[in-house]
Amino acid sequence: MTRPTPAKAPRRRAGRPGGDDLDLRAHLLDAAAAQFARSGIEGSSLRAIAAAAGVTPAMLHYYFGDKARLTQALVEERLMPAMQPLRERLEPVGDDPLALAAAFAHGVAEIVERHPWLPPLWVREVLCEGGTLREVVFRQVVPMLPQWLAGRFAAAQAAGRMNPALDPRLMVVSLVGLTMFPAAAAPVWKQAMDAEPLRSRAMLDHTLALLGSGMRAGSGGETT
Amino acid sequence: MTRPTPAKAPRRRAGRPGGDDLDLRAHLLDAAAAQFARSGIEGSSLRAIAAAAGVTPAMLHYYFGDKARLTQALVEERLMPAMQPLRERLEPVGDDPLALAAAFAHGVAEIVERHPWLPPLWVREVLCEGGTLREVVFRQVVPMLPQWLAGRFAAAQAAGRMNPALDPRLMVVSLVGLTMFPAAAAPVWKQAMDAEPLRSRAMLDHTLALLGSGMRAGSGGETT
Repeated sequence: MTRPTPAKAPRRRAGRPGGDDLDLRAHLLDAAAAQFARSGIEGSSLRAIAAAAGVTPAMLHYYFGDKARLTQALVEERLMPAMQPLRERLEPVGDDPLALAAAFAHGVAEIVERHPWLPPLWVREVLCEGGTLREVVFRQVVPMLPQWLAGRFAAAQAAGRMNPALDPRLMVVSLVGLTMFPAAAAPVWKQAMDAEPLRSRAMLDHTLALLGSGMRAGSGGETT
Repeated sequence: MTRPTPAKAPRRRAGRPGGDDLDLRAHLLDAAAAQFARSGIEGSSLRAIAAAAGVTPAMLHYYFGDKARLTQALVEERLMPAMQPLRERLEPVGDDPLALAAAFAHGVAEIVERHPWLPPLWVREVLCEGGTLREVVFRQVVPMLPQWLAGRFAAAQAAGRMNPALDPRLMVVSLVGLTMFPAAAAPVWKQAMDAEPLRSRAMLDHTLALLGSGMRAGSGGETT
């Protein structure tokens, strides 16, 4: 089978057997992630992904078969590795609920910085009703993570280390709303708020401050 | 033009001239709102909306013309009135930023309770890249509201009444992430967290507690 050279192959490893094939596969997955984020999985034809990747539809089919198998490869080879830093940051944290929330915020900030396709894909395919990835995310990508976090918050609260007026399960929802949502909504609020010149850590610092001490000016801080 | 009786006409006002027409128009708009929320504006054919409303496509066309005009009617007669309580709650609030945030949270809670089609429509048509309503929301539905809120937070912060580590513009994003996002994501997190038995005010109370004093157990409250 003859195949065209991909328009832009990342991480060329000339000389390594099979390296070109791995490069092209990675390039096709990257193109699929970007296309899915832009148009949704249902709205993305294999033809459009192939065109964006600079290959023929037959080439895309040769590597991945149909769209269902391409989507599964994207989950296993892009989405699951992308989310890995979150677990790595959360697992070593002790029993301080604020440290846990901070680790979550840092983890999401790292993920969206590295993988700009992830927040829009999350909106379309998890948050939207009928989203293609809603089930697979909780079964395969972050299995039991919400429950684990809620359990840690509940334990901290029972030990008097977390605001007793909070709901441990809803704390997980709030964390997602304060981290992943702002990343996904950034194109909207940057335009609406004229907030483009914000430095990259601004959202993270703001969120950590809000989680840490809420909106109050603080005791004795009324004039700062 | 003969027309069928709508399958389920809300608010019948027999005897009032034109009442039936107004009823049917309202019924068609409700059906369009529900269909748009379910399948997106682009993904909703006039035929599907007509079928859901129990009328013929010709009847829907008779009242609204094409989909662009139906969408504009929906914005003016459903979306703008739906968002009205938010302004009404915010405007009388004084210069306490926490009272402003609380009024915002109460307003959104009232809106999503009354209009269950609104959060999923907001995800699809404002949050999603290429959403049909992204421009019109900031131009027509909540014009200058984000900037107005950010300005109030900035003034409160300058007067020492708000946590100085927060960003006044990002505070608006956080508020949306703590109110509208959880409403839109409720089908996801209720399933993921097994949180169905939560009472209806639980999310609001939790969010108010988080905004008010953050996650800390509070001074002297380490054992409560």
